[in-house]
Amino acid sequence: MDMSINGKEVSFTSSDASNEKITAAKMPYKSYRPRSVSTCSTDSCSSASLSEDDTPVRSKKQENSSGFSDFCIKDIRLKDFGRREIEFAEQEMPGLMSLRKQVMENKPLRGAKIIGCTPITAPTAVLIETLSALGAELRWCACNIYSTQNEVGAALAEAGFPIFAWRGESVDDFWWCIEKCFEGKNWKPNMILDDGGDATNFCQAKYPSVFKNLIGIVEESTTGIHRLYKLLKAEKLLMPAININNCVTKTKFDNRYSCRESVIVSLKKCTDLMFGAKQIVLCGYGEVGKGCCQSLKGLGCIVYVTEIDPICALQACMDGFKVVKLNEVIRQVDIVITATGNKNVVIREHMDKMKSGCIVCCMSYCHNEIDVAALRTPELKWEKVRSQVDHIRWPDGKTMILLAGGHHVNYTCSSIPSFVTSITGTTQILALMELFNAPIGRYKSDVYLLPKKMDEYVASLHLATFDAHLTELSDEQAKYMGLPKNGPFKPNHYRY
Amino acid sequence: MDMSINGKEVSFTSSDASNEKITAAKMPYKSYRPRSVSTCSTDSCSSASLSEDDTPVRSKKQENSSGFSDFCIKDIRLKDFGRREIEFAEQEMPGLMSLRKQVMENKPLRGAKIIGCTPITAPTAVLIETLSALGAELRWCACNIYSTQNEVGAALAEAGFPIFAWRGESVDDFWWCIEKCFEGKNWKPNMILDDGGDATNFCQAKYPSVFKNLIGIVEESTTGIHRLYKLLKAEKLLMPAININNCVTKTKFDNRYSCRESVIVSLKKCTDLMFGAKQIVLCGYGEVGKGCCQSLKGLGCIVYVTEIDPICALQACMDGFKVVKLNEVIRQVDIVITATGNKNVVIREHMDKMKSGCIVCCMSYCHNEIDVAALRTPELKWEKVRSQVDHIRWPDGKTMILLAGGHHVNYTCSSIPSFVTSITGTTQILALMELFNAPIGRYKSDVYLLPKKMDEYVASLHLATFDAHLTELSDEQAKYMGLPKNGPFKPNHYRY
Amino acid sequence: MDMSINGKEVSFTSSDASNEKITAAKMPYKSYRPRSVSTCSTDSCSSASLSEDDTPVRSKKQENSSGFSDFCIKDIRLKDFGRREIEFAEQEMPGLMSLRKQVMENKPLRGAKIIGCTPITAPTAVLIETLSALGAELRWCACNIYSTQNEVGAALAEAGFPIFAWRGESVDDFWWCIEKCFEGKNWKPNMILDDGGDATNFCQAKYPSVFKNLIGIVEESTTGIHRLYKLLKAEKLLMPAININNCVTKTKFDNRYSCRESVIVSLKKCTDLMFGAKQIVLCGYGEVGKGCCQSLKGLGCIVYVTEIDPICALQACMDGFKVVKLNEVIRQVDIVITATGNKNVVIREHMDKMKSGCIVCCMSYCHNEIDVAALRTPELKWEKVRSQVDHIRWPDGKTMILLAGGHHVNYTCSSIPSFVTSITGTTQILALMELFNAPIGRYKSDVYLLPKKMDEYVASLHLATFDAHLTELSDEQAKYMGLPKNGPFKPNHYRY
Amino acid sequence: MDMSINGKEVSFTSSDASNEKITAAKMPYKSYRPRSVSTCSTDSCSSASLSEDDTPVRSKKQENSSGFSDFCIKDIRLKDFGRREIEFAEQEMPGLMSLRKQVMENKPLRGAKIIGCTPITAPTAVLIETLSALGAELRWCACNIYSTQNEVGAALAEAGFPIFAWRGESVDDFWWCIEKCFEGKNWKPNMILDDGGDATNFCQAKYPSVFKNLIGIVEESTTGIHRLYKLLKAEKLLMPAININNCVTKTKFDNRYSCRESVIVSLKKCTDLMFGAKQIVLCGYGEVGKGCCQSLKGLGCIVYVTEIDPICALQACMDGFKVVKLNEVIRQVDIVITATGNKNVVIREHMDKMKSGCIVCCMSYCHNEIDVAALRTPELKWEKVRSQVDHIRWPDGKTMILLAGGHHVNYTCSSIPSFVTSITGTTQILALMELFNAPIGRYKSDVYLLPKKMDEYVASLHLATFDAHLTELSDEQAKYMGLPKNGPFKPNHYRY
Repeated sequence: MDMSINGKEVSFTSSDASNEKITAAKMPYKSYRPRSVSTCSTDSCSSASLSEDDTPVRSKKQENSSGFSDFCIKDIRLKDFGRREIEFAEQEMPGLMSLRKQVMENKPLRGAKIIGCTPITAPTAVLIETLSALGAELRWCACNIYSTQNEVGAALAEAGFPIFAWRGESVDDFWWCIEKCFEGKNWKPNMILDDGGDATNFCQAKYPSVFKNLIGIVEESTTGIHRLYKLLKAEKLLMPAININNCVTKTKFDNRYSCRESVIVSLKKCTDLMFGAKQIVLCGYGEVGKGCCQSLKGLGCIVYVTEIDPICALQACMDGFKVVKLNEVIRQVDIVITATGNKNVVIREHMDKMKSGCIVCCMSYCHNEIDVAALRTPELKWEKVRSQVDHIRWPDGKTMILLAGGHHVNYTCSSIPSFVTSITGTTQILALMELFNAPIGRYKSDVYLLPKKMDEYVASLHLATFDAHLTELSDEQAKYMGLPKNGPFKPNHYRY
Repeated sequence: MDMSINGKEVSFTSSDASNEKITAAKMPYKSYRPRSVSTCSTDSCSSASLSEDDTPVRSKKQENSSGFSDFCIKDIRLKDFGRREIEFAEQEMPGLMSLRKQVMENKPLRGAKIIGCTPITAPTAVLIETLSALGAELRWCACNIYSTQNEVGAALAEAGFPIFAWRGESVDDFWWCIEKCFEGKNWKPNMILDDGGDATNFCQAKYPSVFKNLIGIVEESTTGIHRLYKLLKAEKLLMPAININNCVTKTKFDNRYSCRESVIVSLKKCTDLMFGAKQIVLCGYGEVGKGCCQSLKGLGCIVYVTEIDPICALQACMDGFKVVKLNEVIRQVDIVITATGNKNVVIREHMDKMKSGCIVCCMSYCHNEIDVAALRTPELKWEKVRSQVDHIRWPDGKTMILLAGGHHVNYTCSSIPSFVTSITGTTQILALMELFNAPIGRYKSDVYLLPKKMDEYVASLHLATFDAHLTELSDEQAKYMGLPKNGPFKPNHYRY
Repeated sequence: MDMSINGKEVSFTSSDASNEKITAAKMPYKSYRPRSVSTCSTDSCSSASLSEDDTPVRSKKQENSSGFSDFCIKDIRLKDFGRREIEFAEQEMPGLMSLRKQVMENKPLRGAKIIGCTPITAPTAVLIETLSALGAELRWCACNIYSTQNEVGAALAEAGFPIFAWRGESVDDFWWCIEKCFEGKNWKPNMILDDGGDATNFCQAKYPSVFKNLIGIVEESTTGIHRLYKLLKAEKLLMPAININNCVTKTKFDNRYSCRESVIVSLKKCTDLMFGAKQIVLCGYGEVGKGCCQSLKGLGCIVYVTEIDPICALQACMDGFKVVKLNEVIRQVDIVITATGNKNVVIREHMDKMKSGCIVCCMSYCHNEIDVAALRTPELKWEKVRSQVDHIRWPDGKTMILLAGGHHVNYTCSSIPSFVTSITGTTQILALMELFNAPIGRYKSDVYLLPKKMDEYVASLHLATFDAHLTELSDEQAKYMGLPKNGPFKPNHYRY
Repeated sequence: MDMSINGKEVSFTSSDASNEKITAAKMPYKSYRPRSVSTCSTDSCSSASLSEDDTPVRSKKQENSSGFSDFCIKDIRLKDFGRREIEFAEQEMPGLMSLRKQVMENKPLRGAKIIGCTPITAPTAVLIETLSALGAELRWCACNIYSTQNEVGAALAEAGFPIFAWRGESVDDFWWCIEKCFEGKNWKPNMILDDGGDATNFCQAKYPSVFKNLIGIVEESTTGIHRLYKLLKAEKLLMPAININNCVTKTKFDNRYSCRESVIVSLKKCTDLMFGAKQIVLCGYGEVGKGCCQSLKGLGCIVYVTEIDPICALQACMDGFKVVKLNEVIRQVDIVITATGNKNVVIREHMDKMKSGCIVCCMSYCHNEIDVAALRTPELKWEKVRSQVDHIRWPDGKTMILLAGGHHVNYTCSSIPSFVTSITGTTQILALMELFNAPIGRYKSDVYLLPKKMDEYVASLHLATFDAHLTELSDEQAKYMGLPKNGPFKPNHYRY
């Protein structure tokens, strides 16, 4: 049987499928942003003290300190370190923690049996433990073979959650873990929280009886949304699904505000550069580009922007950036950053013109935004100088500095702040609660957006941490404005 | 017969209607932003040299240097000064001038007979002369009794345009001028370019035969849009209308980018204040509030924000502003600025708590955002210290400084940059062209938004002036992204 | 007898000296910044109501409402308007008002008989009335024939001060007014507060007996300082003088912080331009240039800098500005601003290359920074379009927009915030108090800088208005740092 | 014999002196900033592959691939990795490389025999190799027992330089290494490049005959400068010394521009925090504080400032920061950053009031700015969660997050950009060249500042990398300004 991981076709039954075989399929427009692999584990003072162990994970004895063994993770000994990471994350996830506190007594998800397929990181653990506190039962696997923090998996297993995930799974492991989520004893899952659509597609293909009885699906990635619409079109979507990919808070935070910070950190972690006076070209002035440009300008960089969309280009102008074609500035810039989501934005022709020492990196999820393949030619010498840094040398000695192999540098060399994950996680939980508790008939077998009022609620949950105080409309003012006193306050097309 | 100006009920036939009678009616949510009275005329070196003349305008002899007399304006002698102002404006209206040049040869509006009812300012004159260059015939009046620049009216009359407008019309004059636009010799108008809906309503009420034969209406104000929808609901809208009020470029430029600059200038023109270190509270973090906060922060102010909408509040937080209730900071701030569009945002209770010297002003169109009426009590002394500045003194000597009588300070004490008007004007012309040339059946008797592609076209026309160069999608990239090569590049819900 | 005004040689006895004869002499490096002519008088609602009166001022009957007549001003009827302007200024001069309150009871200047020669503006009036409140007697004239606000002169005369100044004095009037300050009945002046050195030089030349008995001189301008050093070198300086031109607070506020705001306002008052996306070249990255660049960048301009000093150039780089030679960008920029203090920075060769519509202005005091003389050639047409705006047209129609005739646009089109004058005025008063009360022997016949501790005191007086709270060193900390607990806190060479 | 390291008294002959014994002595006001330990070595992909070796370094066989053995370093096998780091650094040290190229042919340091005592890092290696290229001979040791990058030492040894340094020297090792620098075969050192004064003091104490024949000393640290002045006062300074600690470029770059970036990176490396909306108090608004505040504000933080100096406090006000006493905001802030150089700025009383999760760190060199000792009490639990992160828990569960143990977080968790080191290094070389080549009599046995012209030259060498082009004064302009055409352009007291 053939299936795909996040839309990439792979051979489903072949256990020897190497990672190399997962060829980069066409990425959809506006590709999804996976939760980051937090850098914490690398920096951790304790992880190094545990020697590496090469036993295949699935062959290992799995048991926590209470004798519970319905999980499969890398190493249960990492549990204490993982728990600290989770506690660390809780401090930066005020909205989610506040939601947990507000509604846990009512157990609004009692009866919900959720299969989760997401990255397994400290912030995800906070999400998982909140779902549990709200009454849900769950089984969880990773949506990506590399995205698991093993210590977090250990802490969750120690806490008694059926977790099936480790960093560096094989493709076969990947599907095995998903399958494990469906196979619990007396386990009749009725909801899926998906990130990429793999759990959903697996369920539809392999567990049709589970599939047709699902109460609902919550999906956050563009890829997963596309796949849901495909199902819908084929009249195979048998339950309501909520698309949380386009919520305001998620979009603005995952992109503009998060990247505004991560672009700085990613570049600094990989190089010794000083930002002041650097000339930088930013390809793409969408949310990611806007965030990056703002902070780079703030640190004294001279920033150029390339754009295809005249409206975004005009915004770049008004924000003080010169809008150019890449060729106009490629010889003079010190740094090239891509954030278009498109392919072949920086090609060999550009790279041949760069000055020596030019740093090139990608801030979007698109794997071929920088045409790295075109650099794999005999006359160019590659040298790995640091873990995420390659020097590529031209025959004349000119050197280009490539970060993270041209992949999303913000996930590889930085981490998504837990605060951002708090917003996304809160949105996911509200979507699950909405579907689980909605009166019959409110939702049909279709793909829904989260109601704007819930979007506003997510935002409001995150205000307390900043000691921000909302003003309330008086009755008279609400009437004057024609608005409900408690929102929603804006029409759907409002642009923020 | 009773009608209204911009939605305010007034007695239509009564010639003695004083301005005082036009009571401030309930302003609709998100009220429209009228073109400003440019400050140029006041500053002008030549206007002062002409002595004031008290003859009623309608009794004056009206004739330009060519003997043309189908107009009614204040004083034809102002023509040269007006022409200079128009030329001045042309330099800052690159998009409109570029559109004029690109399409004037084809006369795409040949046969269009347009009634225009807008402010009469230098930038409007550039719009009028462009419409004429594109082949349209037109007659024009003012949408507001105060908004006419007399010298611009003179220059247009000298150029042979039938203009009926002067600053300080009576209400009776106002309707007389509109009527004049319908009564030209051999004149069968087939389009209306409206700003507030007065020409449209007048036409429907008094010239039903003209009304039913209109090809289309273009309306830019929120008030006018509301009135169009009212007509539509009553099944009295007999032709297509285009709403240009919600175009991206118009919204962002009229609000965020324009106010970012005008808030500075407005406050500086009225006072000698230094912005550095001033504590300011900005009520409302919509587009206007965002623009104001950005520039005030840039000049070293400490800015607080009040908001009712948690999403906008969270944006304020992320942008570095403390979100408070007005009462929390009212005793300490130096300046209070409102930009909510709501009523009674700053009330007497707040004003009683302000410290002496506090400056209070309004950046939105809402007339009762600051409850000025509550200051008209015997114990408070009003003193006019400069033309737009009142000092209101409390019995204990505490003084509050009120700008522009609590009305939109950005129009009274500053001016809208011609560049912004260029964007709006270009949009208006494109909308007229679209309606005039659309194949039969494309538009029905309904209210339409301008297609996003035209929004993008307006933006693209304004890029050249900044020497901004767009990148073009390759065929391969367009396919990869699933986008047409020439746009539109974004879905309608994209938030920019 | 021949003397000079602010270092410009003029014929002292000739009463018909036209202003044209005051040729622009070589300006000293880092020229002084005169107090601005506030724009208030122009905007005033009351000043216009008084009809102009052409009687020579010196021939007018001068008498205030109490019958006092020892003054010579333009028109005593302007007194009420002037008083309001003074009260307005007081609100923005917290440091000076606070000093007045703190020390007025002790009358620390009782016995001081001060001749003042400064601009006569509302903020100066606050200075004058403070000196009086501190016990000083004084007679006052203007240091500049154009810098007097007539209404302020009127208010001061009404309050009983012997003021001799009006706007538009002839050169003969100028010296007559200074002379009047020396000729009061029973008047033996013992101090001079000078701005440019004219009163000092006049005293030395014409009243040597007064001169040799002076307790001290306080001078704030570079020109005046140069002249003091000249006297010192010639061994003709017979008393101590304090140079307040180089105080930290004065320098930073008069230049960086003040110009950061005034550059915006000056340009906006003269034109309808929108700053967003404008390309601007700033010639000179000293304090003025740094202030201008910061705010222009904040409003979305793309700013280029020219510099001769590599250290300032490197600062410009680090602050995010491209450092260029003027010729490199002159064809593309929308605005050229000079702030070098040097001559012929923008010359005809540059102006010939500018694109049409380029705005050119000067932010420094140097009159020939822009070589305006080179534009007075037959092929170029000059047209005055607004009061401070000239259009100069090239034969091919290209137009350059010159502001304020190439003179310091920030004084002509904007005003110095009273807050800045408060800092300078407080410094002047402290210097007078120091000289007047110093024990014999502390100061010799030399030019002194104000002690840093007083500089710090001036700053501290201005903190209260911002509700800023200083931290105090503990004894232990002071010892650890090797600092006196109450300052001075920095060595003299500290750069802030 | 008793001596001190950087002014800390230690027992010189005792080989068992533990690090604990080097008690933190009183740090001088404005303490010196040591070159950072670059983070590269930790991140390096190759360093991990070499197993740790516990043999005492001085007992190891030391020999490079050419058989040269006059050095003592940790492990020669690290040479290739070290060389890559050096090449990496060269790219970011354009000024130093440019100086090397410009003057190496003339060998201006031929005959100079320099003892260097500085940190041994990649940027220092670039300095060392430049000195050699300029003709100097040298022997080098570390000025700090922890500051050596072993791989850089290896690369230098491989290149044939007599290097005596490794990370983690004992105090005995430290002095042994310095001694080795004096004991080369046929080696008569005639200059010292010192950082802290240890080599200088050692020389004076142990090699008086070398000392009295020295041509000159170059010293960059405040500590070292203090010690030189002590020698001078005691009339024991027998040669000229140049203080490069107070050069403009060094000061501004080492502090403001460098910390503007490193504060962001340091905090991000240690935590997962998001800067947006965080409330931060910055203790101290000197150069470091100004740099930190600027970038934190740019990322959307709300920043409060504490200051003792009213001038700096007023600057903070004008830059938009509220100036408070620490106690006023300590309960509400998320982050406390110290940059005062003073002791006990954050004390237990403050820490008891902080909210849970508050992050505390130090951006200055002062070890007791945060009174960490006061946290070592039984009721508080310390937990090390990451390598530079401690959680300190109060009995009620409140947690404070302490970074880098309260030590300079910017050196521990970030690195000084090589660009900054390039500026300092270039200044050091120019100072050495100046002393070595000065005609007899120019310098006496005293402590000198580097001439301003050389400061300007250092800046000019660093402009090329930014493609920044200086404007040159015309003869006429230079005369007008009274300036030499090639500088120096500013008086010594100019504040930049």
